[in-house]
Amino acid sequence: MFQPPLIAFLTDFGLEDAFVGVMKGVIASIYRDARVIDLTHAISAQNVRQAAFNLDRSISYFPAETIFVCVVDPGVGTARRAIGVEAGPYIFIAPDNGLLTPVFERYPDARCHELTNAAYQLANPSATFHGRDLFSPAAAHLATGVPLDAFGSAIDVADCTRIELWQNKPCDNGKVWTGEVIATDHFGNLITSFEASMLSDGKDWKIKAGNAEPLTIARTYGEVQPGQPLAYIGSSGVIEIAIRNGNASEKLGVGEGNVVELCKN
Amino acid sequence: MFQPPLIAFLTDFGLEDAFVGVMKGVIASIYRDARVIDLTHAISAQNVRQAAFNLDRSISYFPAETIFVCVVDPGVGTARRAIGVEAGPYIFIAPDNGLLTPVFERYPDARCHELTNAAYQLANPSATFHGRDLFSPAAAHLATGVPLDAFGSAIDVADCTRIELWQNKPCDNGKVWTGEVIATDHFGNLITSFEASMLSDGKDWKIKAGNAEPLTIARTYGEVQPGQPLAYIGSSGVIEIAIRNGNASEKLGVGEGNVVELCKN
Amino acid sequence: MFQPPLIAFLTDFGLEDAFVGVMKGVIASIYRDARVIDLTHAISAQNVRQAAFNLDRSISYFPAETIFVCVVDPGVGTARRAIGVEAGPYIFIAPDNGLLTPVFERYPDARCHELTNAAYQLANPSATFHGRDLFSPAAAHLATGVPLDAFGSAIDVADCTRIELWQNKPCDNGKVWTGEVIATDHFGNLITSFEASMLSDGKDWKIKAGNAEPLTIARTYGEVQPGQPLAYIGSSGVIEIAIRNGNASEKLGVGEGNVVELCKN
Repeated sequence: MFQPPLIAFLTDFGLEDAFVGVMKGVIASIYRDARVIDLTHAISAQNVRQAAFNLDRSISYFPAETIFVCVVDPGVGTARRAIGVEAGPYIFIAPDNGLLTPVFERYPDARCHELTNAAYQLANPSATFHGRDLFSPAAAHLATGVPLDAFGSAIDVADCTRIELWQNKPCDNGKVWTGEVIATDHFGNLITSFEASMLSDGKDWKIKAGNAEPLTIARTYGEVQPGQPLAYIGSSGVIEIAIRNGNASEKLGVGEGNVVELCKN
Repeated sequence: MFQPPLIAFLTDFGLEDAFVGVMKGVIASIYRDARVIDLTHAISAQNVRQAAFNLDRSISYFPAETIFVCVVDPGVGTARRAIGVEAGPYIFIAPDNGLLTPVFERYPDARCHELTNAAYQLANPSATFHGRDLFSPAAAHLATGVPLDAFGSAIDVADCTRIELWQNKPCDNGKVWTGEVIATDHFGNLITSFEASMLSDGKDWKIKAGNAEPLTIARTYGEVQPGQPLAYIGSSGVIEIAIRNGNASEKLGVGEGNVVELCKN
Repeated sequence: MFQPPLIAFLTDFGLEDAFVGVMKGVIASIYRDARVIDLTHAISAQNVRQAAFNLDRSISYFPAETIFVCVVDPGVGTARRAIGVEAGPYIFIAPDNGLLTPVFERYPDARCHELTNAAYQLANPSATFHGRDLFSPAAAHLATGVPLDAFGSAIDVADCTRIELWQNKPCDNGKVWTGEVIATDHFGNLITSFEASMLSDGKDWKIKAGNAEPLTIARTYGEVQPGQPLAYIGSSGVIEIAIRNGNASEKLGVGEGNVVELCKN
């Protein structure tokens, strides 16, 4: 039996306005049976790198044929392109501002088209809300089966904008790395830019954030007492720093964009 | 093939409680196949005018047959009526407190019934949560095809409560208008009460908010440098004030309810 | 016609991250037709009692066959068990930390299984995000019709963890009770631990919170002037304290966990 593809939203629109609801109305107006999942609307305003990180860590949890609508778009209203990318079993639509960098890295064979065909946009699109006027209609039409080629010219993915996802830098012969806090989650846990794989040499690595003592890498919250800080490989595959049953960001005075250090003896 | 109508929620209930989830449970209990879209639950508490504005700017993005459930209801528990309104291809249910003013303006032929039939309410309705006990069951029953007439007596729409949606006032022979900030959006942009049509005389209008210099009306964010303020016709068709890549409400110290001025030379 | 069971989420994950969106992706990956309702994701972080209260007051609004996924899980990563409970027409899955106490009270015949079968979990489950790796897959597989027995050994519900849901204490021969504020809702209303049934002796009870004068129990907001405090039986069946058209928590300086008193003359 035919199952309509999922449409998954990833934006920085928040839920304090009708933005997201209106986008769902637009999709339902084009394709009543479309099924929409809110991956998140809480990317920090205009933080393209944070969006790319979240997308990267979420893709594999979605079924084949999912259409990801990614709108973190500080350049809306400028000449930046809107693109659609077929990559593996998925389709991604987004502004061409680097948000899809992890898609290009995962799927070297991805193919890309510009989204310019006015037939698949709302009439009289605004200059400020392409999520409603351009990206949502594109997603709905793709979900009905319109092929990506119909949306506009092909673009060589090598010409798409890519960004450095994060900036881990080695010093002291790789014994120390500086990285950063990519995001603070709902619990106040610090999501860092250090991949679990950086620990694979089996050495005694410690991580340092703010004024806290350097932390060894634990396996679970249970290894420390309530109120104590710990570092561990988080569910996104990077090192996180938490306070057991507490808020690490508040207690350590560290947040998004701050520097963290990973050191071995 | 039959498609169940959409049910679109617009409330001030927020998402910090189980209110909205319980309403969806109520709807699913009556009509398992009902499809619900959250237009927004973030109307400022008991701000009926803001709800009316949001509804007005959202209606046309929804497909025919949508049932809008609008619950911003400072008078819950008083004698205020609950009403259902068939208007154009839509149905609206709401307290009779002026929230549906834009519906009456758009659809002069709208017809209205009071929602009094206990058969379409939960048993023992509370005095404080009609969203759960009265409006959600009404929406679900309407979605299954119960006609509006079955819910209660017809009311002449001329007898329904209407409110002044906003208070733009001319002075100095129409060279200056005072208006207001209807809402501050997720990005800190100021949504004003000045309609785009007010600029249609082609004169050199400027808008003034807080201590900022009067701003000319730009077309896109791209026309100013990051960090600079700009005014433009927003995606809702009214003038908005923003800081490019910044938060205008914070930076200008202006928010919901504050006065703004539109002036021409 | 077959209708897939609903899956209702109750968590403390918030909506500031991709946690909830990823769980929905996991569910859709296993069962594309699953229908998910967010009961709430705004339980205060790790507040198992608040989760239990919200679950208790929400269950009856959901249709038969609903699968409740309840994840407030301060012990994730410790030896605490994950359980599935068939109770009445519902299924509940949760950590075995007392969250399901109201389920055991409502349904003495409930039967419980541990969720240990790796076939119904994601591969390589993390130690910190069982909502994604264990509970969501379990819900999706249950929704497809896998019987609870397949997930792991039966557990005697008498061996499941139970908690005291709240701590109303009598003094002065039952003329005074001390209780607590279970939660502050989106409007700033104080949800107390005093059940409506405590007023059933028809005596002149008053409730006291913070520095406010003791309040008699009103029936609706309409009984006091705007700006004035009132107490009433809220929509959850417990006494609430509100300021009409205002924020009681802010105005009275009272919030979650604070003591309230119920007294009769």
